[in-house]
Amino acid sequence: MSDFVRPVPLEHAYRLINHGPVVLVSATYGGDTNVMAAAWVCALDFSPPKVTLVLDKATHTRALVEASGQCLLHVPTRDQARMVLGLGSDTARQDPHKLSKHGVQWFQPTEGSPNLVQGCAAWLQCRVILEPHNQAAYDLFIAEVDAAWADERVFSGGRWHFEGAPDGMRTLHYVAGGQFFVTGAPWWVEDRVPDGTT
Amino acid sequence: MSDFVRPVPLEHAYRLINHGPVVLVSATYGGDTNVMAAAWVCALDFSPPKVTLVLDKATHTRALVEASGQCLLHVPTRDQARMVLGLGSDTARQDPHKLSKHGVQWFQPTEGSPNLVQGCAAWLQCRVILEPHNQAAYDLFIAEVDAAWADERVFSGGRWHFEGAPDGMRTLHYVAGGQFFVTGAPWWVEDRVPDGTT
Repeated sequence: MSDFVRPVPLEHAYRLINHGPVVLVSATYGGDTNVMAAAWVCALDFSPPKVTLVLDKATHTRALVEASGQCLLHVPTRDQARMVLGLGSDTARQDPHKLSKHGVQWFQPTEGSPNLVQGCAAWLQCRVILEPHNQAAYDLFIAEVDAAWADERVFSGGRWHFEGAPDGMRTLHYVAGGQFFVTGAPWWVEDRVPDGTT
Repeated sequence: MSDFVRPVPLEHAYRLINHGPVVLVSATYGGDTNVMAAAWVCALDFSPPKVTLVLDKATHTRALVEASGQCLLHVPTRDQARMVLGLGSDTARQDPHKLSKHGVQWFQPTEGSPNLVQGCAAWLQCRVILEPHNQAAYDLFIAEVDAAWADERVFSGGRWHFEGAPDGMRTLHYVAGGQFFVTGAPWWVEDRVPDGTT
């Protein structure tokens, strides 16, 4: 299932989330893995790439992130909208079968790589930079990106290109109340259209 | 020019940026006002609403934000893409006429309100919560939202509704190299479609 998954150079990793998509956050500790949905994830730096993410104290995923010092970000697609809502609504504390219930399946892009959620458009492997005050006062985590991958059908050469791929592979932007927006048409200011791009 | 601009209740303010649009950040101090573009702005809390924003040390707007302790976020539209790129590329330190060069015009939604950039889809008035370590180490600012407004043609009743408004009023998501995505079609998981929404 990883035929189209390619590593993304770290200097392009920020572009995987620069357009503000909703993401899935996963973490593993002591054999326990969980996944939650998070709309409040944002790029923080280019090089080395860093991100901010907001993880509520009530979430089991946060406990796993704090225990392991690591997390993975998975950028889901329109085809995964139902899974995203389910993973954002249910808690593993009440439903231990949350992941299988919502159809989460895993793959490894290469041997030794972490497990990534199948069917997403991009993935970022992150290491938490400990900032106890931010975490306690604001639920705000800072992490550095150590590796990144993308499905080359929608991201390659450092940019997203949803045209030419199935519409179900577009990324999602979350609003509230179960409503998403799909990432729409590209827009270039006229005199800045790169060669070969229409 | 503010015929369609309405206050947004603070409990809905986060929804103005929850879908990850690029924003304009403005600040004023000592009679000096500047505006920059920022893709790295993110919701941080619901109530009271808070946001994070990343402001590079090289920007003049950051100096004004630090001096005044305040900033405004303006959510621009597709029709303003050229202005957004211009405000994100030029610096007021080298071009004192930057704002007029890129066509920034201001209006006050009501008497006593701050000046907002005309033509945007939504606006948030923010007060910086001083976090010197974040600001120095990460260029990361935390701010609380004190007031918000939106153009009722695209946001009302606590939600975005770009259908029925001109396409040029859609919000923008920034990638890199002058490329934006326009906010696309709404997407609901089937069994969660609210009454009256198609």
